[in-house]
Amino acid sequence: MTEHQDRPVIAIIGAGLIGRGWSIVFARAGLPVRIWDPDAGLRRALPARIAEMLRAVGMAEEVCEQISVFDSLADALSGASYVQENGPEKLEVKQALFAEMDGIAAPDTVLASSSSALVASRFGEGLKGRARILVAHPVNPPHLVPVVELCPSPDTAPEVMDRAEALHRRVGQVPVRMSREIDGFILNRLQAVVLAEAMSLIGQGIVSVEGLDDTMRHGLGRRWTLMGPLETIYLNAPAGVPDYLERYGPMMAGLADSAARGEAFTAQTAERLAAAFPPADHVPERSAQRDAKLAALDRHLRRYDTED
Amino acid sequence: MTEHQDRPVIAIIGAGLIGRGWSIVFARAGLPVRIWDPDAGLRRALPARIAEMLRAVGMAEEVCEQISVFDSLADALSGASYVQENGPEKLEVKQALFAEMDGIAAPDTVLASSSSALVASRFGEGLKGRARILVAHPVNPPHLVPVVELCPSPDTAPEVMDRAEALHRRVGQVPVRMSREIDGFILNRLQAVVLAEAMSLIGQGIVSVEGLDDTMRHGLGRRWTLMGPLETIYLNAPAGVPDYLERYGPMMAGLADSAARGEAFTAQTAERLAAAFPPADHVPERSAQRDAKLAALDRHLRRYDTED
Repeated sequence: MTEHQDRPVIAIIGAGLIGRGWSIVFARAGLPVRIWDPDAGLRRALPARIAEMLRAVGMAEEVCEQISVFDSLADALSGASYVQENGPEKLEVKQALFAEMDGIAAPDTVLASSSSALVASRFGEGLKGRARILVAHPVNPPHLVPVVELCPSPDTAPEVMDRAEALHRRVGQVPVRMSREIDGFILNRLQAVVLAEAMSLIGQGIVSVEGLDDTMRHGLGRRWTLMGPLETIYLNAPAGVPDYLERYGPMMAGLADSAARGEAFTAQTAERLAAAFPPADHVPERSAQRDAKLAALDRHLRRYDTED
Repeated sequence: MTEHQDRPVIAIIGAGLIGRGWSIVFARAGLPVRIWDPDAGLRRALPARIAEMLRAVGMAEEVCEQISVFDSLADALSGASYVQENGPEKLEVKQALFAEMDGIAAPDTVLASSSSALVASRFGEGLKGRARILVAHPVNPPHLVPVVELCPSPDTAPEVMDRAEALHRRVGQVPVRMSREIDGFILNRLQAVVLAEAMSLIGQGIVSVEGLDDTMRHGLGRRWTLMGPLETIYLNAPAGVPDYLERYGPMMAGLADSAARGEAFTAQTAERLAAAFPPADHVPERSAQRDAKLAALDRHLRRYDTED
């Protein structure tokens, strides 16, 4: 590994939106990126598609110079010390892909999956190299939202977690290291409880879709973006966390006890949500606006954090 | 009311942190603010305390010129068309205060409470003017976080809700109108489910306090700040909300079913949280940093939204 540590080579396997975003993350940090996708048409289009993603958010197109497209999985993996896999969320597909990569990649190459729904023990089980396999789950798009959840299987070696964590920190992402597998990791568990309660409140007619989003956008979300939910409560009572929990803990526990669960995801509420937004053909344009806003917010937060 | 509508007079009753923040909200929008607190020492200190709050976040001190301090509740209410009450969260105190205000204020004056824990039916019950009483629950500090939850009691008149909503919109807040009372309103219900799940994941040792906060700060929180949780899912599947719910609804419902409830608020996890943050004597300094960051974020978001 020593020859790689100064400038590790990254392989990106699967070049959909997430894979292309990852290629930008590593390339803009100056690391050589080798990318492959099974779709030959997509492979040919990749340089132009990645350049377009960079332009869309005001990033320098020179980043592309770090990225090379390869026509085979084996070529892309050659010399890589870290692989970020972005295939479909289907168990059989991931199992086959990880078995193939485990057979080809050098023994000390780390194999990480962007999977949001499958844990590493399910697609790494039984493989010789299961100790070097983990999940590194990003938020879409990873070049604009820096968090990455690092989740080991029971077989993942601690030093593999160390290497993945150090690499993501080096390229400017924010790695969140988990100690063991749990469905939904951290981020989607938090998202699920908010969506369930949101759908319940809307389903009961207590608040509109817009009102619910406004409560988060112009209220809670701002504190959580600057500090997270726990530093928020540390600063929300004069004597810190114990004071907060003494004052508000029983109320919060009571609200959690009365919160909605999975039954809130009804077809009727889904229709109400759908009716509150423009038709789906507006999604691409609105997604592009979202990405521009995420990029501007990321720049604002990074600038502000260094000013501390 | 007609003589008030061009430039309504605002009374702020109770001048703690929340009351002072409210005085800034209305005064910076050019409205005359009349403020009273039962503590004579605090009343004398108010002009300096409010000027200090303005300086701390880079706001113009001339805002103070709109704010007048009065020595009695009756004087503060004189001529006011909207009252924002910020007394202690104790039922007997609020009942007595609203009974007194209802007896003094002109019949068409709106009486709103900043209460986070008590609903208006509890402190407005039996009062002659109960139709003009509502909760207008802010996030602390209201001059830096614009959301305000407007919650009627069963007795609150729709036109009172209309007037409160129009006033808050006029002064640059983001009013969220609820159709009826529910404990925790919207914001604290969402906060409660996230805190319960966060405490559970930390209590199980799956993630650190810092890792949990990072997941929100550098991940989910950013999307939610720009769009809210529902527009987030609208943009997270190619064909909008129905597509999202078909792909991820069952997973999200399953995660919500397995989520933590009030039992996650254990003393042991509370200790773990407390240990992750500096001692409570750092809270004032860290709160000041938070406020500066909230102010900068608010400026960033308002600038960006007008550029759309």
